[in-house]
Amino acid sequence: MSTSFTMIGGEGPDSYREHSKYQKINEAISTKLDIDFTSNLVNIADFGCSSGPNTFDAVQTIIDAVEHKYQEDTEYQVFFNDSPNNDFNTLFKTLPPTRKYFATGVPGSFFGRVLPRSSFHVGVCSYSLHFVSKVPKEIKDRDSPVWNKDIHCTGSSKEVAKLYLDQYKIDVGSFLSARAQELVPGGLLLLLGSCLPNGVQISETVVGMMIDNIGSSLNEIAKQGLIDQEKLDAFKLPIYLAHADDLKQIITDNGCYTIEVFDKISHEHGEFPLDPEYLTISFKVTVGGIVTSQFGQDAMEKTYELVKEKTQEMLPQLAKAKPGMQYLIVLRKN
Amino acid sequence: MSTSFTMIGGEGPDSYREHSKYQKINEAISTKLDIDFTSNLVNIADFGCSSGPNTFDAVQTIIDAVEHKYQEDTEYQVFFNDSPNNDFNTLFKTLPPTRKYFATGVPGSFFGRVLPRSSFHVGVCSYSLHFVSKVPKEIKDRDSPVWNKDIHCTGSSKEVAKLYLDQYKIDVGSFLSARAQELVPGGLLLLLGSCLPNGVQISETVVGMMIDNIGSSLNEIAKQGLIDQEKLDAFKLPIYLAHADDLKQIITDNGCYTIEVFDKISHEHGEFPLDPEYLTISFKVTVGGIVTSQFGQDAMEKTYELVKEKTQEMLPQLAKAKPGMQYLIVLRKN
Repeated sequence: MSTSFTMIGGEGPDSYREHSKYQKINEAISTKLDIDFTSNLVNIADFGCSSGPNTFDAVQTIIDAVEHKYQEDTEYQVFFNDSPNNDFNTLFKTLPPTRKYFATGVPGSFFGRVLPRSSFHVGVCSYSLHFVSKVPKEIKDRDSPVWNKDIHCTGSSKEVAKLYLDQYKIDVGSFLSARAQELVPGGLLLLLGSCLPNGVQISETVVGMMIDNIGSSLNEIAKQGLIDQEKLDAFKLPIYLAHADDLKQIITDNGCYTIEVFDKISHEHGEFPLDPEYLTISFKVTVGGIVTSQFGQDAMEKTYELVKEKTQEMLPQLAKAKPGMQYLIVLRKN
Repeated sequence: MSTSFTMIGGEGPDSYREHSKYQKINEAISTKLDIDFTSNLVNIADFGCSSGPNTFDAVQTIIDAVEHKYQEDTEYQVFFNDSPNNDFNTLFKTLPPTRKYFATGVPGSFFGRVLPRSSFHVGVCSYSLHFVSKVPKEIKDRDSPVWNKDIHCTGSSKEVAKLYLDQYKIDVGSFLSARAQELVPGGLLLLLGSCLPNGVQISETVVGMMIDNIGSSLNEIAKQGLIDQEKLDAFKLPIYLAHADDLKQIITDNGCYTIEVFDKISHEHGEFPLDPEYLTISFKVTVGGIVTSQFGQDAMEKTYELVKEKTQEMLPQLAKAKPGMQYLIVLRKN
């Protein structure tokens, strides 16, 4: 599941945000990393690595930045973590042949422990923390008063949004507590991802509008009898885009870290280009996988044909969307 | 490739040798492991792990033995190493749910470095060291004076056997040197596998006879036009069963280890039962994969139908075979 979701709002078919993202990672490592190594080994971990290839760039950026600070005979070991359902075979076969690190795969949910105590120095979690471990079941239950008719909370119901946020707090808290045990004291945890600027509702953003578009396209497909309406009624995306202040509060409440950086990554060319082709492909890369896993490849393809048509019609509305927020957060383990 | 080979001579469809093997591993750890841990972390590595499930038993045996010696809050991390072509996805999905260790996969050839310096405490290589990294090309070349007409050296040509042995020395030497860098000083490396008792030729053993059986079956399949004769002429198994003394000499020459144990694992019920069904399935598990990868599933199945018929005919000869040797070697890093 994670393989199809990790990049929501993060990277489209051309990743025009990459440059500024990697520059910020480099700066963060250069100015903030300050560890006494007992051995000449630096352990890097990537949580929610997916099956590449973008994950290799993030790790390489970290290693390049660390190399500037420490001696030449330092060795690097990289732990690529994701769910056991991730395609590690592909990850392993496509490792950069010129890499200067020892690569390992770590299967397991990052909401729990996956590495030994004090075993990594720098970790990164890139566009994976908007997952929730589960959608609260009342939200999926057609007979429940808080059943959500859409495939995601788009702000229409405060109760639904609160249930999502409660789950998100539990999950991000679990993630932070597990990493706090695994990270060496003074080590850095870099979080990259999507959230919402304070005061902005997801339904006001391109992400929210596109998710609604996918939801209503699925509804039409269901009306045509191509997918089961009852199954669609229970289908909710297991993602949550928090407001920046909520995310900051969860980190503060966790208590294991000092927030060194909480930055908005700016978009040189705006958040999304207003191009139906680009937008459709972007949200096919990010959400298409889970649609396929629930409804099959054929229904997914038909859904996205509709999504593209609707995106064309929605362009005036999309042009007025409020921007979302891409963040780089750098945490130091206390 | 390795997945289809790792168990040659080691484990058949019912693994009646397991008990004595694990008992010996337990004894070796109990009496020989003597490490000062700077942290409460014990790292175990399995080189040539294949895709389970036997690999989990070997690792668990080591952990159980180590647990007896050290304090309760010790954490364990296991590095499962094999070629990037190994099926790590299956390995990861079938990890024992009740395991008390952090599991990681390490893709890469164990003839080179795959882990950082001084990064594991106990390693095991189980029925994988009879692989050679390549078959010397003169042996595969029909026009070469040392071309080997059989699919393996069965003692008919001293030149061929020497070329295999030379390659084996290089490969086992590389393996030992790489592990010596990765192993902490005083750490243990356990080698389990098949070799030949001194003075015994492979052609005199069940393994040699069964490999010849597979070779002649392939020849018949080629005569029927089902596989390409030229391709078969170049097809040689990339395995070598060394004599015990040669293996001991390679370890001594390497110079990085003290040999703590060099034991023959005895077979309570004899090396192989004289059962055509059992023998055919055993050598299908171990050699069938590489036959399939070269000649396809269909040719492999037809070959093994012949193998089974021939095994029935060969029973009197197999009854007189000299036993091979299963070894447990325990090395301490100097």
